[in-house]
Amino acid sequence: MGNKAKIKKLKKRLKKLEKQLKKASTHTHAVAPLAPAEFPALPIIAGARFSAVKAGVKYADRLDVMLAELQPGTTIAGVFTKSTTRSAPVLDCQAKLGSDPTNGAAIIVNAGNSNAFTGDNGFASVEAITGAVAQTLDVPANRVYSASTGVIGEPLPWEKITVCLDELNGTLMPDTLEQAAQAIRTTDTFAKGAKAEVKIDDRIVHIAGIAKGSGMIAPDMATMLVFIFTDAKVDQPVLQSILSNLTDKTFNNITVDSDTSTSDTLLLAATGASGVEVDADTQAFCTALHDVMLDLAHQVVRDGEGATKFVEVRVSGAKSDADARVHALAIANSPLVKTAVAGEDPNWGRVVMAIGKSGAYAERDKLTIRFGEVLVAENGWVAPTYREEDGAAHMALDELLIDVDLGLGNGKASVWTCDLTHGYIEINADYRS
Amino acid sequence: MGNKAKIKKLKKRLKKLEKQLKKASTHTHAVAPLAPAEFPALPIIAGARFSAVKAGVKYADRLDVMLAELQPGTTIAGVFTKSTTRSAPVLDCQAKLGSDPTNGAAIIVNAGNSNAFTGDNGFASVEAITGAVAQTLDVPANRVYSASTGVIGEPLPWEKITVCLDELNGTLMPDTLEQAAQAIRTTDTFAKGAKAEVKIDDRIVHIAGIAKGSGMIAPDMATMLVFIFTDAKVDQPVLQSILSNLTDKTFNNITVDSDTSTSDTLLLAATGASGVEVDADTQAFCTALHDVMLDLAHQVVRDGEGATKFVEVRVSGAKSDADARVHALAIANSPLVKTAVAGEDPNWGRVVMAIGKSGAYAERDKLTIRFGEVLVAENGWVAPTYREEDGAAHMALDELLIDVDLGLGNGKASVWTCDLTHGYIEINADYRS
Repeated sequence: MGNKAKIKKLKKRLKKLEKQLKKASTHTHAVAPLAPAEFPALPIIAGARFSAVKAGVKYADRLDVMLAELQPGTTIAGVFTKSTTRSAPVLDCQAKLGSDPTNGAAIIVNAGNSNAFTGDNGFASVEAITGAVAQTLDVPANRVYSASTGVIGEPLPWEKITVCLDELNGTLMPDTLEQAAQAIRTTDTFAKGAKAEVKIDDRIVHIAGIAKGSGMIAPDMATMLVFIFTDAKVDQPVLQSILSNLTDKTFNNITVDSDTSTSDTLLLAATGASGVEVDADTQAFCTALHDVMLDLAHQVVRDGEGATKFVEVRVSGAKSDADARVHALAIANSPLVKTAVAGEDPNWGRVVMAIGKSGAYAERDKLTIRFGEVLVAENGWVAPTYREEDGAAHMALDELLIDVDLGLGNGKASVWTCDLTHGYIEINADYRS
Repeated sequence: MGNKAKIKKLKKRLKKLEKQLKKASTHTHAVAPLAPAEFPALPIIAGARFSAVKAGVKYADRLDVMLAELQPGTTIAGVFTKSTTRSAPVLDCQAKLGSDPTNGAAIIVNAGNSNAFTGDNGFASVEAITGAVAQTLDVPANRVYSASTGVIGEPLPWEKITVCLDELNGTLMPDTLEQAAQAIRTTDTFAKGAKAEVKIDDRIVHIAGIAKGSGMIAPDMATMLVFIFTDAKVDQPVLQSILSNLTDKTFNNITVDSDTSTSDTLLLAATGASGVEVDADTQAFCTALHDVMLDLAHQVVRDGEGATKFVEVRVSGAKSDADARVHALAIANSPLVKTAVAGEDPNWGRVVMAIGKSGAYAERDKLTIRFGEVLVAENGWVAPTYREEDGAAHMALDELLIDVDLGLGNGKASVWTCDLTHGYIEINADYRS
């Protein structure tokens, strides 16, 4: 890059920073530019009540602990990080998944400290917290699920949580899921919620979910906590199978930075209060749940640390769906692709590079690449109709599509990601201090 | 992060940018802070001559094409990118590796355009260039190797290169390898060279190498071009086996951004002019070549785009060397680890995260993590002796060691990387314009 261009760029960057500085002086948490306009009005899920408090686990003066109380008979399914260094709360949740649903259940979550890599102390904290919740709500300890998110490797000050249990219990309400969504945020710039209503046998089943996550996001669940509630009546093994299946199509296909958390937890609780029985073949329910999960997954990407662009990477024509996913992830995780997106540069050569390095099968001369509707490259070279300004116009959008047809078979996959910007570096180069 | 901290950070960043702006106003290419003090005085390699010209392939008024002429009998070995979308010059080199070494040989390289993903035109360009070199130097076309580096997907203006061949031929000299190193740079901020002399049977064998590369660097060869010359006498199959073996211990263990290029090319030419015969068991030669290769590999990392820290990730105690390498690469490629290094934050929790997500076997409670000599974590938790200021002191260094003992077996590996900074984003968010 020439000297003049460099100076011009630095000046532009200075201007942007000055703007950020001005913004920071008036707001504590600027909201991500890709955030939805507002938090959705979540439906009441009969059989579930929620509360949230300011426990001061790490953050001062903000909601940071949530409690969910679930009526007797509620079935609970879960999907968790596959990390070999997963946290004590994750291991504890996994052990409790199969427990008898006869009695009531609870979910307790804190933000600010992940209670991960905290040795024996980690398990002791989980036991202390879940034991205290069990006592307060009069439910079995093996029906109390917990999740923690935040800094790794620091002992969780669990007394700050247990001391709030009476307040949490006393303020449980059916319509406070939004406060719970607020309480589980860490670097999230907005609370995430999604909902669906579905008619089955002339009765309405409700689904409401909340999520947190904006960095350390990659398939196999990322730094995400997701809690979804429904009043459908679903046997636990069926609920588990539906959830696992849909996770592979939603949360496991998003990536912000390719890093995977030690704490990822997705819990789905079915209270059964609607009386509507659902099984794995109840298509309407599965579709509605899929949409809620995909909505939450997209919101996590939209809140990706430093994100200014929301990108779908769609790969088709692969030898298999698995191959398509490998290619899509290689593109979505490539720092060079992500910085090109940040710079609104239609640098399709980097897409070719990412396909080449993915490890999955490709044939260079059969590739077709599109940015949105714009045909960019085909037959091993730039398309004769391609004009740089058309590619640039698509890259200037807030929501992009990178569309690759491998020309080999019927395998396909979509992965969602965001760009890699100065904002990501700013947030992560000094997270702990 | 609180508002005050945010403002403080933005102000700090503004100051840094202002400094960069000032610097840019006086220098066109700032040299990477981790660059060696100077280019080494490379030894003469008898039987090899070099030249470089300003061909204007893309860059104006700088050396951008190099030629190496190699005497009859020179054997040539090569290692190349494994990308499925590799460039025409790479495919051409691979096809020529086994060719009869009786006659002379040549290597021609340009910077500014990679001639990758350029369809049939790519092969035509390679043929035009290598054919013209063969004619000019009077060597067989199947002994002319070419490499191209730079933008992907744009037709290579090969006439700009062939028109310079008389000048390149007329200025061939034994002592101009440094100019050749200058000519192959793209975003490199400094030319890279390394050398060794080794005594075998009372005679001296010389090795001299040059390299380019600073982004799109990852194992399996990255955007690197490396050319190494020796006056040892080595049969081609032996030379190939030595080179392949040493590549796995050097160039395949560095990573800047996990992206792998379509053009990576490493060529090793042995002129035989010293008369000293070398085979795979000549340990002194292999060690010297290893050191040259590792030196060049480290220089590529030191010139990593935006790099301010040089990091060795050393993993021991794994079940196998392969497992150790998987863990080391997961740590070295983690954006969250790399930004923590940039921020001088001893955030060892992110190291735990990276080990957990790597996919290789680990047991959380058997891990030992050190930053340099500082024991940070063991037995599944922070070490009782660890003080944050000790970790921070190590992170403040320019050259860091992240040392992980998995406590499982004897497998070990080292990988070298750099931090992820605003500089990387600046360089890559607008590379093409």
